Amino acid sequence: MTNFYHGKKVLVTGGLGFLGSNLSRHLVELGAKVTLLDSLLKGHGGNLFNMADFKKSVRFVKGDIRNKKLTEKIVKGQDILFNIAAQTSHTDSMKNPYLDVDINTRGQINLLEACRKGNPGIRIVYCSTRAVYGSAAKRIIDEATLPNPLDVYATNKLAGENYHRVYAKVFGLNATVLRLSNGYGPRAQMKEPSFGILNWFIRLALDDAEIKIFGDGKQVRDYAYVDDMTEAFLKTAQNNDIKGEILNIASGHGLPLINIVKEVVRIAGTGKIVHVPWPDTNKKIDVGDFIADVHKARRLIGWEASTPLKDGLAETIDFYRQNKRRYW
Amino acid sequence: MTNFYHGKKVLVTGGLGFLGSNLSRHLVELGAKVTLLDSLLKGHGGNLFNMADFKKSVRFVKGDIRNKKLTEKIVKGQDILFNIAAQTSHTDSMKNPYLDVDINTRGQINLLEACRKGNPGIRIVYCSTRAVYGSAAKRIIDEATLPNPLDVYATNKLAGENYHRVYAKVFGLNATVLRLSNGYGPRAQMKEPSFGILNWFIRLALDDAEIKIFGDGKQVRDYAYVDDMTEAFLKTAQNNDIKGEILNIASGHGLPLINIVKEVVRIAGTGKIVHVPWPDTNKKIDVGDFIADVHKARRLIGWEASTPLKDGLAETIDFYRQNKRRYW
Repeated sequence: MTNFYHGKKVLVTGGLGFLGSNLSRHLVELGAKVTLLDSLLKGHGGNLFNMADFKKSVRFVKGDIRNKKLTEKIVKGQDILFNIAAQTSHTDSMKNPYLDVDINTRGQINLLEACRKGNPGIRIVYCSTRAVYGSAAKRIIDEATLPNPLDVYATNKLAGENYHRVYAKVFGLNATVLRLSNGYGPRAQMKEPSFGILNWFIRLALDDAEIKIFGDGKQVRDYAYVDDMTEAFLKTAQNNDIKGEILNIASGHGLPLINIVKEVVRIAGTGKIVHVPWPDTNKKIDVGDFIADVHKARRLIGWEASTPLKDGLAETIDFYRQNKRRYW
Repeated sequence: MTNFYHGKKVLVTGGLGFLGSNLSRHLVELGAKVTLLDSLLKGHGGNLFNMADFKKSVRFVKGDIRNKKLTEKIVKGQDILFNIAAQTSHTDSMKNPYLDVDINTRGQINLLEACRKGNPGIRIVYCSTRAVYGSAAKRIIDEATLPNPLDVYATNKLAGENYHRVYAKVFGLNATVLRLSNGYGPRAQMKEPSFGILNWFIRLALDDAEIKIFGDGKQVRDYAYVDDMTEAFLKTAQNNDIKGEILNIASGHGLPLINIVKEVVRIAGTGKIVHVPWPDTNKKIDVGDFIADVHKARRLIGWEASTPLKDGLAETIDFYRQNKRRYW
């Protein structure tokens, strides 16, 4: 993998966020020439501290994919685009659907038009989400499952996927879509729960606070460690024969949420689990059990998640314990 | 049906277009108080002549669903919204994706937010399209078929569907989605082929021009007459138990395109069919055979298409023969 990325010009949109910054760190280690684009939109995942240990090795551009001129300029000359920038909050997308539309639909068109006109040979990996499945009728979800988005965010991420597939088919852009399961790990937004509940529970544990679990907590979730996910991005961009494809990126194993949280409390040594009844509104939008079928990713990019939950949690808890003040 | 619509306040967006104007005409006959909203966007389907025979019985507002303030004002006090306004050209959506995004995603959010805040009890019927299926893996397509949009237009129409379903689920709006098959009939945009190929072939026949059929013309299509389609809208809004549902609206019968075109030439008495080889670009984006499964509409709204093709074509040809100068 070192040889492939060495000297490659790589643009990471959302580069200061959770996924983008972890991916950028690996790209720097692999010798890539990395440009990070991030709007540092208040309340979202972008955090300057996320590049603290590699900022001298990358070019950082503060900017927004809603800015058409900027997208035209920044994709020029790049070999690879890891397209991760997004409005990623479910709840915010229902409170302010316009922001979500502007970033997750119009902003994506900005990037794709910029590539089509200024850099049609660029390799694109689009970061999508298991949220497009919503509450699917099946328990184990493969990529042929009928999408059923439950909010504006998931609706627009599905549109973003389809834009990439349309531009691949009609204009020949070499774009591939990754549908990421729930993730956890260092460098996430930790100020509020809306960007990822497991990281939020880790914060509560480190604060020795109450962790409220709805009902018995037996709803099954498929959590992947961020380093496994970034490895999937790296492997995807190296494969040129999966244009227009959609790949699930997840652990492929389901665990009851309560078991995961017990492990968090055990490793942290702090935090208290409290069971509370399901609030009506949450019950209504809960997606039910979710396990991703990851055979396609294994087959097409030779990837599977390899980090055991306890190791990923230990790394994560250790990172935030050391860097609490940068994230709380 | 007369009783249901008599005195009802009905808003039709895209009211001067092909579907919107035919629907509005029926609503006027049924005694509804109809408001037509149409932007009369140049090159699109809106045509003032479409309301020539009922303009004194409706309120017409020239305006655009991209105008947030206007959408807020216009939905107030309405009982029913037939939400038909859209950018509807496949090819334009690839030439200018921004216009499509602004109308078909952002504009839809304008309308839904306006309803949610100013008229949450309104009954909404959203006009979508079989284009969301794209080239589906099956030949007979029911509503559970995996969407596979092939252009920006179809992508955004799918997003529009999902917005309506999300607002139904999360905010309780009473919205239903209709996925319309290919339509034909009076009052369409007839200046260029990008809005509906069968109407375009009718124009060519009336002009006694060459009708170019790609290959043998044996690709199967499911065409529905516009009066059948507007009847589906009328029946949908009368049913309050299909919130968030998606219904295919089509004839449910497939016919080879060549047979349909031969019928056009026979009824018109003019026009010449010419077979030409498939152009590469068209072959690439052709959706293949398409027949819609319409059992769900039959079951839930008691609707099925009833106009025989030859009758629909005769009406259509007669209309355009009389009103050529208004549409050519």
